[in-house]
Amino acid sequence: MSDTPLEHLSPEQFRQAGYALIDWLVDYRAKVAEMPVKPRVAPGDIRALLPASAPDQGESFEAILADLERVIVPGLMHWQSPNFFGYFPANASPPSILGDLLSSGLGVQGMLWLTSPACTELESHVLDWLVDALGLPARFKTTGAGGGVIQDSASSATLCALLAARERVSGYTVRQAGVPSGLVAYCSEETHSSLDKAVSIAGIGRAQLRKIATDERLAMRADVLAQTIAADRAAGLTPFFVCATIGTTSSLAVDPIAAIATLCREQGLWLHVDGAMAGSATLCPEYRHLNEGLDGADSYCFNPHKWLLTNFDCDCFFVADREPLIRALTVLPEYLRNEASASGEAIDYRDWQIPLGRRFRALKLWFVLRSYGLDALRTFIRQHLALAAEFEQWVVNAPDFELAVPRSLNLICFRKRGTDVDNQALLKRLNDSGRLFMSHTVIRGRFTLRLCIGQTYTTREHVAAAWQSIRTL
Amino acid sequence: MSDTPLEHLSPEQFRQAGYALIDWLVDYRAKVAEMPVKPRVAPGDIRALLPASAPDQGESFEAILADLERVIVPGLMHWQSPNFFGYFPANASPPSILGDLLSSGLGVQGMLWLTSPACTELESHVLDWLVDALGLPARFKTTGAGGGVIQDSASSATLCALLAARERVSGYTVRQAGVPSGLVAYCSEETHSSLDKAVSIAGIGRAQLRKIATDERLAMRADVLAQTIAADRAAGLTPFFVCATIGTTSSLAVDPIAAIATLCREQGLWLHVDGAMAGSATLCPEYRHLNEGLDGADSYCFNPHKWLLTNFDCDCFFVADREPLIRALTVLPEYLRNEASASGEAIDYRDWQIPLGRRFRALKLWFVLRSYGLDALRTFIRQHLALAAEFEQWVVNAPDFELAVPRSLNLICFRKRGTDVDNQALLKRLNDSGRLFMSHTVIRGRFTLRLCIGQTYTTREHVAAAWQSIRTL
Repeated sequence: MSDTPLEHLSPEQFRQAGYALIDWLVDYRAKVAEMPVKPRVAPGDIRALLPASAPDQGESFEAILADLERVIVPGLMHWQSPNFFGYFPANASPPSILGDLLSSGLGVQGMLWLTSPACTELESHVLDWLVDALGLPARFKTTGAGGGVIQDSASSATLCALLAARERVSGYTVRQAGVPSGLVAYCSEETHSSLDKAVSIAGIGRAQLRKIATDERLAMRADVLAQTIAADRAAGLTPFFVCATIGTTSSLAVDPIAAIATLCREQGLWLHVDGAMAGSATLCPEYRHLNEGLDGADSYCFNPHKWLLTNFDCDCFFVADREPLIRALTVLPEYLRNEASASGEAIDYRDWQIPLGRRFRALKLWFVLRSYGLDALRTFIRQHLALAAEFEQWVVNAPDFELAVPRSLNLICFRKRGTDVDNQALLKRLNDSGRLFMSHTVIRGRFTLRLCIGQTYTTREHVAAAWQSIRTL
Repeated sequence: MSDTPLEHLSPEQFRQAGYALIDWLVDYRAKVAEMPVKPRVAPGDIRALLPASAPDQGESFEAILADLERVIVPGLMHWQSPNFFGYFPANASPPSILGDLLSSGLGVQGMLWLTSPACTELESHVLDWLVDALGLPARFKTTGAGGGVIQDSASSATLCALLAARERVSGYTVRQAGVPSGLVAYCSEETHSSLDKAVSIAGIGRAQLRKIATDERLAMRADVLAQTIAADRAAGLTPFFVCATIGTTSSLAVDPIAAIATLCREQGLWLHVDGAMAGSATLCPEYRHLNEGLDGADSYCFNPHKWLLTNFDCDCFFVADREPLIRALTVLPEYLRNEASASGEAIDYRDWQIPLGRRFRALKLWFVLRSYGLDALRTFIRQHLALAAEFEQWVVNAPDFELAVPRSLNLICFRKRGTDVDNQALLKRLNDSGRLFMSHTVIRGRFTLRLCIGQTYTTREHVAAAWQSIRTL
């Protein structure tokens, strides 16, 4: 390719640049395990390498690729490294990358059925596939009164659930009149921070979010929830929403969904269940028990972009009844009116989410499910779970380490026997070494190391090396 | 590639499948101009072609590509066709597709500076580039008290602006206490429907959104805005937010930003300006006047994913002061605490948006700006504007057609002389023909055809053919 600026890349230039970038990604993946997982940069280091203004003249693709190596790669946390054990994984498998490339290349807008029917219908269909594959309640299917939709993240799914609940409890008046005083929402002390953000955004206010105490496994105490709801009712308030979690962010604790669902049904509260990370495990029949009680939930979400090999963004959000969701979020300006929408026979997903526009995200999920097949995806989940069980035993058997809580699924929360300061220093040494990346949490007031095994290419070799580093650094 | 299911594609399989998909996209783009722009399908047609459940065994990449042709392509609206003139364009240029492929392949999370410093710093830097390139106020730069961030859409940007304004006017109490009664927001009758959605989501309620009358050019009347604010104050209410528009969705009308900004400053209201489509024109000095008054705005957004050759999602959102935004949206659970955040020297973009997670979206913008260069991007904008001016003259000179309003930028709102029903029938014939796609609006009560010239590959030939179809069908 020449350095001459061109108005557009020619088809042949696009092809050659595309091949070059695919090659680059194949090479990157081949060597990412050898790179320091956490970059060695300070704030401002990357910007200092970039020119002060955008170029007036176009530059060659080679020049851009060279800067990718020089400027960008040294400033990346390598989430695709098999030595990445931090937070939760953000898998980007080859099939999902290719499905996403197709979404970028087709460049269709899925805001309405009309604006790209295949975008809407593949999404409804693939999410219905997942209802069966994960053993979720059939009422979450679009073929009934409910349905599934891809959101960018569990944060947005939770916010949408809260908004739908807000409309339903108010007899569909909040959208027009604004939030009445007295609405109260519930979660546990361990629920993801996105619920704090959601009640804030929705204008309910964090003071109206009750954080219910947890038991020794860090799961929400349904008895305390019942007492708190009763006390709020006695005080003249209006309980309306509970967010329960299958697999909390801190420790993958599982709330007692069945008991909470029963309570919510009796009390007329909307139950949203967040299975962002853990939900993928229910692909395996032996983990299907995690779904117990979900048939009493009004909404549920889990993130294939965490543990189901599908790249960000891909949160699957399901509702048992789509009417409250749509009534909470619909707008219909003249310029979006069309026959298909008016017929009531088509889904317009712009009414199921915060933004108007939307990408064709179902493609990457379709590519992943078909390319791997459910059997291979189950194998993949089981491999991670087996490695996590093995790591847990190493911790249990090491005299100078201890579990902070018993392992849940693929997350081990543990610490070196000693002070919080010792553990903070250990984590810093480990992450600064570049050999692996882990993150932390605080459990019962104590600083705790978190090791989550779920990266696409993590094998026993990487987990064993991580344990070796943890013990010796 | 064999049909044998594999746990993961091997590097070589990934490479070959990647090449095949790049080839597929090059071919698609070569033939998209010949395809019917609007698909000929009815609700349910696509789903009927898909199997009832996800496969247990993995399938070959060839099988998936074959179904792409068989199932998906016939159900697509071809937004990348040069004969697409509907809504606003959603350009996906080759450099942006490649930048996005890189984002998918690297798979990094940009929620915190720490979780991928290059993701955050490239974004800040490229958005600062755009401040200069578009002649925006310098206070929108991250190097000062303000800053830019990529949102998924203008809908989300508007919501974030509203939330920041809500916190600021309340002395930073809404987040905790909930929305007080009496807050009032303002827009015009022509403002995008996302503002209805935003006031609803934020719990303010649509009844507290005043839609200000517009003038003969469909621009907000600043005098009516002033009167309405005064009347609301007199009624004991709290005006706090105005959304003005540079280029409305219906007709690209431009509100009098300078007058509105003066009023907002006097009255202490947050001014958000939505330049989603039109903002890209200010890359050309001769359209820089569109920014007049923006130095008095608190926030601004425009969408490179519309007219700046960058694929969805890419809305650039700027604030003059980032503090209210961050205070409205920040959450800090233990598991996200880190030294860089605590130092105050790093930007954590999760506090600038609704979701927590985020893709490396700056890459595609970086690729576009560098690959084309600003000069070529200006040429591209000017070509579309010249074509729109020519089309406008064709309408003016055709005895059986008329403009609904004078052309604004690259959008022509016009109709065939006759009834609304005639025009509805004409639009249906045109779109059903597959030769082009246009959408409609209603202006001053009358059904109006909208033709927007802004697709990446649209040339004079396509515009002339569209006019030929419009006149003869």
